[in-house]
Amino acid sequence: MERYTIGIDYGTESGRALLVRVSDGAEIATAVHEYQDGVIDKHLPGETRPLPPDWALQNPNDYLEVLKETIPSVLAESGVSSEQVIGLAIDFTACTMMPALADGTPLCNLPEFRTNPHAWVKLWKHHAAQPHADRINATGRELGQSWLSRYGGKISSEWFFSKALQILEEAPEVYHKADRLIEAADWTIWQMTGVETRNACTAGYKAIYQDGDYPPREYFAALNPDFADVVDSKMSRELVDLGDKAGGLTEEAAGWTGLEPGTPVAVANVDAHVTFPATGHVESGTMVMIMGTSTCHMLVADELREVEGMCGVVMGGIVPGRYGYEAGQSGVGDIFAWFVDNGVPPEYHRQAEELGLSLHELLEREAAKQRPGEHGLLALDWFNGNRSVLVDVELSGLLVGMTLATKAPDIYRALLESTAYGTRIIIEACKESGLPVKKLIAAGGLPGRNPLLMQIYADVCNQEIDLIESEQGPALGAAMHAAVAAGVYADIEEAARHMGRLSDKVYKPIPENVAVYDELYRDYRFLHDLFGRSGASDPGGVMKRLRERRAGALKGSA
Amino acid sequence: MERYTIGIDYGTESGRALLVRVSDGAEIATAVHEYQDGVIDKHLPGETRPLPPDWALQNPNDYLEVLKETIPSVLAESGVSSEQVIGLAIDFTACTMMPALADGTPLCNLPEFRTNPHAWVKLWKHHAAQPHADRINATGRELGQSWLSRYGGKISSEWFFSKALQILEEAPEVYHKADRLIEAADWTIWQMTGVETRNACTAGYKAIYQDGDYPPREYFAALNPDFADVVDSKMSRELVDLGDKAGGLTEEAAGWTGLEPGTPVAVANVDAHVTFPATGHVESGTMVMIMGTSTCHMLVADELREVEGMCGVVMGGIVPGRYGYEAGQSGVGDIFAWFVDNGVPPEYHRQAEELGLSLHELLEREAAKQRPGEHGLLALDWFNGNRSVLVDVELSGLLVGMTLATKAPDIYRALLESTAYGTRIIIEACKESGLPVKKLIAAGGLPGRNPLLMQIYADVCNQEIDLIESEQGPALGAAMHAAVAAGVYADIEEAARHMGRLSDKVYKPIPENVAVYDELYRDYRFLHDLFGRSGASDPGGVMKRLRERRAGALKGSA
Repeated sequence: MERYTIGIDYGTESGRALLVRVSDGAEIATAVHEYQDGVIDKHLPGETRPLPPDWALQNPNDYLEVLKETIPSVLAESGVSSEQVIGLAIDFTACTMMPALADGTPLCNLPEFRTNPHAWVKLWKHHAAQPHADRINATGRELGQSWLSRYGGKISSEWFFSKALQILEEAPEVYHKADRLIEAADWTIWQMTGVETRNACTAGYKAIYQDGDYPPREYFAALNPDFADVVDSKMSRELVDLGDKAGGLTEEAAGWTGLEPGTPVAVANVDAHVTFPATGHVESGTMVMIMGTSTCHMLVADELREVEGMCGVVMGGIVPGRYGYEAGQSGVGDIFAWFVDNGVPPEYHRQAEELGLSLHELLEREAAKQRPGEHGLLALDWFNGNRSVLVDVELSGLLVGMTLATKAPDIYRALLESTAYGTRIIIEACKESGLPVKKLIAAGGLPGRNPLLMQIYADVCNQEIDLIESEQGPALGAAMHAAVAAGVYADIEEAARHMGRLSDKVYKPIPENVAVYDELYRDYRFLHDLFGRSGASDPGGVMKRLRERRAGALKGSA
Repeated sequence: MERYTIGIDYGTESGRALLVRVSDGAEIATAVHEYQDGVIDKHLPGETRPLPPDWALQNPNDYLEVLKETIPSVLAESGVSSEQVIGLAIDFTACTMMPALADGTPLCNLPEFRTNPHAWVKLWKHHAAQPHADRINATGRELGQSWLSRYGGKISSEWFFSKALQILEEAPEVYHKADRLIEAADWTIWQMTGVETRNACTAGYKAIYQDGDYPPREYFAALNPDFADVVDSKMSRELVDLGDKAGGLTEEAAGWTGLEPGTPVAVANVDAHVTFPATGHVESGTMVMIMGTSTCHMLVADELREVEGMCGVVMGGIVPGRYGYEAGQSGVGDIFAWFVDNGVPPEYHRQAEELGLSLHELLEREAAKQRPGEHGLLALDWFNGNRSVLVDVELSGLLVGMTLATKAPDIYRALLESTAYGTRIIIEACKESGLPVKKLIAAGGLPGRNPLLMQIYADVCNQEIDLIESEQGPALGAAMHAAVAAGVYADIEEAARHMGRLSDKVYKPIPENVAVYDELYRDYRFLHDLFGRSGASDPGGVMKRLRERRAGALKGSA
């Protein structure tokens, strides 16, 4: 009897189940369910009062609907029986967190809290806790907190304690009513198993869990006396390793899904990180880039090193027993999309339509006709700020070299290249810290449909780039963790060898391109350091001053 | 009996006659004639052999057709009699030069030279003499020629000796057959009057006539032994001041035009320079900007000073008895046009069409809604190189500050502003050399239809900007010189007081904008010096290296 696991990938707009054969990782069936309330950023469901700017919420009940809809669907589609499904696992966006009662009831399900926005799930891209993040960082520096350096010196407004502190200070009634503050990922596992667990990945990357503990009580007290006991009163100090079993499926959850009660469920995981083993590689020195609107760079290594501007370094954050390093570029596909939407004249739109191509495809085709250096342009890829290695949201884009003969495909290619230089900066920062990238793998939405982009990355980084084979990397990775939780494989490394895989396509550096890009990279690096490392009062702090003036002008208009 | 003069403005594509009342400069009638052969840059008329790249020729017979067509037309339109027309003058593009026989016959009119491109008029924008210009500059430096500093250290490929040396070395048969090498402006006056003259303006700005003489024989011999006697064998050492009479209209020319034989004709002039007095102002310290695809900045002053990167300083080059300084920005309207053609997405094209606006107008309207600094952008205006004060064609454009929220009107406004900063650089260079700009006047095609642009210039330069009233500045200026040549006014200054005038519209600096632009200008200046003054091997020499790599890549593709 063949055995299967199901991985469920909780994204921003929908959830996806993937039924996978345990013996070889073959993807047998998949189903998607869109969240009914989607991203809640205008007003609460059934309400008309507008949410403030930068808010982004979700409805936790939508997560359970995904289970009820997609799992029966993949079973039906595949003809696989419930007995053949030996394990389940999920991955999630993060930090996506929520307040709940001790029995797991979401606060937003209580009638008296239904209209309180702070009672709902705060989605990863809820950015309204920036003032709280700023205080978390300032206080961390003042009190000499050692964990700061593990996060590039800055905790994000997206992360757990920024959001938790916002709840306490803007809605104390919610904070005090909440028995638990918990990642939606862990809450969903709780609903499936009846067991509350906290996974090592989100705790480490999003909730400052380092070297076996959270920040001390005195630190939280310095932020707000009422916040002193946040860990012990709302969270848990017991973390569970990735791939460990959280519990068995409850009778109720078995009823939702058509699976057997007691089916092993793995502890929750994060969408980017769970993808890593789906490449089939978790060896020390492997870097996986999840390339989409932004790029997340993850490196697995045996050594603990300080690398400039990492978003996070977490023991067991990607694979148990190894350090997981996370870096990132905050704008990649987003920048290309910005250009396609805002910088391309009608003639290219017409031509793309005539040829039945997307504008991206047309621009890539035209840009691919050029040799490296031919357009005479160089760009800095900070349209959405920089989060590695400079960690500065005030930075912005730059384009140099334009002449009256510059055309849209020239700029498009320069923007593709700029993101490759940005990746090389991260790879070199790792190398300089004693963490050479021995194997480089691309995953996510961009690599499969952008061959020029991938060749440029290989040429700029002078490194072979492999591509993950699965188009459902996160769900496949989750299914692998389910197989480990079910005891089929001893650990993620073994599961990766059997169930993960790379595509046959490998991008190899072309020596003559490497030579030109090496020179261009030196210029990129000059601009990077000049504009990126100068303070607002240094001559090179142009970007920071432009931001300040923009803020001043907008204030003046208001 | 009212008296009139006619000014004829020879442009790149056509010639225009303007009939002007001498007493007050009123513009009575105008007529335009397009050159039949226009700009000859593909192949000679009647030939199929393609011209090499960068060539631009004209047919001198087209210039005479302008006289025959437009002068009778303005007489007929106005009802002014030939006796009432007391003087004629012309202005011309420059350096636009040609080979001729001793009797004035253009070499291209000789059957045996008809198919030789070097026998035709070389238009100002003929750029194929760059190698010759490079040698002129290198040899000038080697031999320590003092005149180099009067031209910002560089003679242009567009200028007289570059083109003359190209003729000698690429078509010695043309060079040796030519009794005269002459500006088309002076040649046209020769055809009208039967008298060969050389005007002080083109000789000074285009033919290195400084302090009473051309460069010495030994210098020309060092360029090429056969070039040693170019001045004495092909040119003339006698120059005529602007506003002086060249001669009277010949019987033949009177027959072409319907004017009286003997009607005074002034010596020729250059289109930009002749516009200066049409503003009504020629006082020391006045700067006139002719703003179009590029901008020509002219300053009249009593003092001789070395100003960094001037295109030329010529005694009597604009007004007799004063130094005329010429500087310029090689891309202004051209940059805005580049952006409108290459950087604006379809939605704005559609909107402009719906509103019945040009795309320029729509973008200006949207950009005008912003406060200074609001878009958060800063640009360098070197899309077509820099010709003041850096004098470097290898420089290119730069744009910094883009975010994912940047829109086309933001960039459009940043480009407008960048050209204003470029003008301020020139004004400050003058001031730092002891030549303060006391009065700033805008002329040319841009000022009248771009109110936002002009307000930005006033704010950036913190200086009131007047506008010339006439829409035919060059032709009006020529008509004024005709009035001086005819003896109605003692000199150009007196003619300017009576016939020139400014519009009522004055752009005044807005203090709060001035403050923001002062800060932005400091950042512009930082980028200007960093990218503009760094050598190719300095870290800041990014633009130069991008050019080199582009040239290398294009060579590799060929």
